[in-house]
Amino acid sequence: MGVYPKTVEQVMQALGKLPTIGPKSAERLTLHLLKAPKAETLHLAAALITLRESTRTCARCSNFSDEEECGICRDPQRDQGLLCVVEEPRDILAIEKTGSYRGTYHALLGVLSPLQGVGPDDLKIAALVDHVKRRHFREVILAMNSTAEGEATALYLTRLLKPLEVPLSRLASGIPVGNQLEHTDQATLTTALEARRPL
Amino acid sequence: MGVYPKTVEQVMQALGKLPTIGPKSAERLTLHLLKAPKAETLHLAAALITLRESTRTCARCSNFSDEEECGICRDPQRDQGLLCVVEEPRDILAIEKTGSYRGTYHALLGVLSPLQGVGPDDLKIAALVDHVKRRHFREVILAMNSTAEGEATALYLTRLLKPLEVPLSRLASGIPVGNQLEHTDQATLTTALEARRPL
Repeated sequence: MGVYPKTVEQVMQALGKLPTIGPKSAERLTLHLLKAPKAETLHLAAALITLRESTRTCARCSNFSDEEECGICRDPQRDQGLLCVVEEPRDILAIEKTGSYRGTYHALLGVLSPLQGVGPDDLKIAALVDHVKRRHFREVILAMNSTAEGEATALYLTRLLKPLEVPLSRLASGIPVGNQLEHTDQATLTTALEARRPL
Repeated sequence: MGVYPKTVEQVMQALGKLPTIGPKSAERLTLHLLKAPKAETLHLAAALITLRESTRTCARCSNFSDEEECGICRDPQRDQGLLCVVEEPRDILAIEKTGSYRGTYHALLGVLSPLQGVGPDDLKIAALVDHVKRRHFREVILAMNSTAEGEATALYLTRLLKPLEVPLSRLASGIPVGNQLEHTDQATLTTALEARRPL
């Protein structure tokens, strides 16, 4: 037999598969979960089951949701004239945390990636076009990541949405707030120079 | 509503209570558990339930076990003449990993701590004495931690077991293998000096 009984070994292995959790952390966490109040460990197990059984995709914007439509789409206070298009629900969460955007969202659930065989039909692009056609947005913000694939997707969407005569914008690229020039990579510095603003 | 639906929030909170997992890690792990193959997440949940429902304490040595007696106590290859007394099952696991001990164990399930109200009756001490009386050990190794409480417990056990005329030993204290003198604390260095070995 191994050093641990099977019941312990199984949790260690399952935890060890999670990102950023190495064998040493998995062992420490497992021993904690074995010694912690039983109700706490069982609560975590139940929460994991509920997470996968009851979390769904918002029918309107594809955000994570525990109802037919997510909390943002159901919120009458949100500005329905603004649409922010992101790659993934986690991007919605990142923007929400800034507290500086009060419009609505649309998650593509991915990014165009010919190399990985992800084309327009694999993303929520048809739904986006349909959305833009039927509703009158004052502005559609393309908030893809500042990566090659993100830029390509933004370009693709720009070509698709331009004919619909909706004002489009893209998140600004430049030096991260608080960063020093000497620690900024060349591509970012080039972008920041080209996009310099008159004072 | 918060940024996350309740189903997601609950897992984040439960994970955030675990040692070494901060809010940022809890968020990242939760999003992973939401996107990973559903079977993987449900497997982790099931393993956590089994961990708490089926892991028990070995009837003989108090090690973690998934049967009446643990794998070590059931192993006929182990040297039944050697007994190693440790504080916790995790100490058994630490010693097992060295691969340099083939005897049996006895876990006290704690350490004497008057300040925290832990006395001899709260530990598996009566069972240990009973054990030593009934079986003939060639040697009993007191492998408590090298802490004040560990030392006090070892001293207490020494007084209790000495009259039974069983050879007792204590793990060596000294400079950790691979460590430099200048980075060794004073108490350890003092112990290493006092316990110096003739060559």
